[in-house]
Amino acid sequence: MRATFMYGAGDVRVEDAPDPVLREPTDAVVRIVRSCVCGSDLHPYRSMPFSGRGTPMGHEFLGVVEDLGSEVSGLKRGDLVVSPFAYSDNTCEFCCEGLHTSCRHGGFWGAPEVGGAQAEAIRVPQAAGTLVAVPGVGEDSALLPSLLTLADVYGTGYHAAKKARVNERTTVTVIGDGAVGLLAVLSARQLGAERIVLMGRHADRTDLGREFGATDVVAERGEEGVAKVRELTGGDGTHTVLEAVGHTSAYEMAVGVARPGGVISRVGVPQYEEAPIGFDSLFGHNITLTGGPAPVRAYVEELLPAVLDGTVDPGRVFDLTVDLEQTPDGYRAMDQRDALKTLIRF
Amino acid sequence: MRATFMYGAGDVRVEDAPDPVLREPTDAVVRIVRSCVCGSDLHPYRSMPFSGRGTPMGHEFLGVVEDLGSEVSGLKRGDLVVSPFAYSDNTCEFCCEGLHTSCRHGGFWGAPEVGGAQAEAIRVPQAAGTLVAVPGVGEDSALLPSLLTLADVYGTGYHAAKKARVNERTTVTVIGDGAVGLLAVLSARQLGAERIVLMGRHADRTDLGREFGATDVVAERGEEGVAKVRELTGGDGTHTVLEAVGHTSAYEMAVGVARPGGVISRVGVPQYEEAPIGFDSLFGHNITLTGGPAPVRAYVEELLPAVLDGTVDPGRVFDLTVDLEQTPDGYRAMDQRDALKTLIRF
Repeated sequence: MRATFMYGAGDVRVEDAPDPVLREPTDAVVRIVRSCVCGSDLHPYRSMPFSGRGTPMGHEFLGVVEDLGSEVSGLKRGDLVVSPFAYSDNTCEFCCEGLHTSCRHGGFWGAPEVGGAQAEAIRVPQAAGTLVAVPGVGEDSALLPSLLTLADVYGTGYHAAKKARVNERTTVTVIGDGAVGLLAVLSARQLGAERIVLMGRHADRTDLGREFGATDVVAERGEEGVAKVRELTGGDGTHTVLEAVGHTSAYEMAVGVARPGGVISRVGVPQYEEAPIGFDSLFGHNITLTGGPAPVRAYVEELLPAVLDGTVDPGRVFDLTVDLEQTPDGYRAMDQRDALKTLIRF
Repeated sequence: MRATFMYGAGDVRVEDAPDPVLREPTDAVVRIVRSCVCGSDLHPYRSMPFSGRGTPMGHEFLGVVEDLGSEVSGLKRGDLVVSPFAYSDNTCEFCCEGLHTSCRHGGFWGAPEVGGAQAEAIRVPQAAGTLVAVPGVGEDSALLPSLLTLADVYGTGYHAAKKARVNERTTVTVIGDGAVGLLAVLSARQLGAERIVLMGRHADRTDLGREFGATDVVAERGEEGVAKVRELTGGDGTHTVLEAVGHTSAYEMAVGVARPGGVISRVGVPQYEEAPIGFDSLFGHNITLTGGPAPVRAYVEELLPAVLDGTVDPGRVFDLTVDLEQTPDGYRAMDQRDALKTLIRF
């Protein structure tokens, strides 16, 4: 089959790779129908040291079940399935608590033994726990882009809002106008928030953010951006801050706009390890810091109905579609901000 | 009157000071009946640069109302009152949310304009919101030490447990065997926790912790202590970690013993500003960091009944009693770990 590998910063290649096969009785093999490039793929795209051995790329996909191990229940060949960006058994105590990213038998795509999803096919460990079949949806359905967001960006935006306990009484700031930030806006709106400030400086993206529910847009960054959000909120900041970027500067803005007693919920993968959390940043104002890799598997059933009936259309975050062989162009377009999010079709 | 001032590390003096008087119609003047020395007073006691002008000390007290401003309702002269370590109006939106430490008209003792509580009397701003009368309790009641803990250490331990959402299903680690740590144990037990691991290395203190509800005591510190807690919890750590110390080493232990998806709740005043919060510490495991200065005013009514009826006896944290003039000895004994917490009588 053909599959995508990254060899270093800026160096993405589509190459021949062995066809995936069942290894464990709990595995499935899935032929991929739609995949995409993630904002988090841009971190290594900008910084990964060159290696002679490529890293398999991609962790979001819709596909059709081609083969099933003997112990996989609840799925059959030919099922169209959504896969979260982490695999999980959906039965261990962490999964039962809704923390599938810490599953005792789980893991993440991209490791050499499981491969990546920017490829024609993939082996899925813990298939019964991981994959969610979507009956009645065909391989050419107009719903595919929105369904694909359940694999990561929609569930991740939703995780940010859920962990922050967004509700009809909370004001919200969303930091970042990437796909996750925009879907954090959509999620906050779904959870009842009426005041949602979106911090982002790409008008085409923040325009989509307004359609998703943002009531205010702040294009300024840094201290200027913080001052603007404070001005919009009577000086206090917002009850919740959903941080969907991952850089130190975004964290600092989050601290700056959080209301005393409020919550900062991070879903942008931190590109730092140390940051201010002492008396002058979090502690003195009783600000809570939460978030992490989203256990999107926990949210699929909850988010699926509104996608299927068209109430929400999170797939609008895709603004570029490429064939698998053009995947390197899809990375480049996102890196240069020519594309918000690249869909890969097969 | 006589009052306590700190001039620098190790330099505490009891001196003559002007008698407090009403300044605002919302003030009260209170004659102090019991005060005490706080673990947080030890931070400046160990590090404060010398100044020619002393800082008024003390923020925990019981007293008798001597004088009332014209706008103070709900109190009368002669009332025995408990005062939280922060004053607050108890009516602004932050107070209504239970965040009295961020009150729009609030503040903290020790500033020159309000003075400290290790003194014969004190001016109380926002007296109607701040003070809680305890009818039927005399100036010689055996309940005074326990009532005094409502001013800070009991409410602070309770805040740690509440912010961590401790309940009957959560395992708990408490870091620190000072008064706040021990009362965090008591609070966790009151909130239903059945497994409470206390990390502390002073046997007399951890023995009291066991009486307050600790089921396990870990005397080891650092990586060794973390390994011990993990061993006690099947390798996973505990759902909640109540951090009652404030040093970087305590924060690092907290991260080490927190279960994926768990909560670290800090009430020890951080003696650091930056600390690890990235993928390898908090983010990767979806660990939540919460806590801050405890809005103890919010908890007084909730905690008072069990103190009055003797169900709990948080006053056992006091193991040294001094007269006001001996207050410097009280600091020294706590600094040298000869005393857990010093009560000041008048």
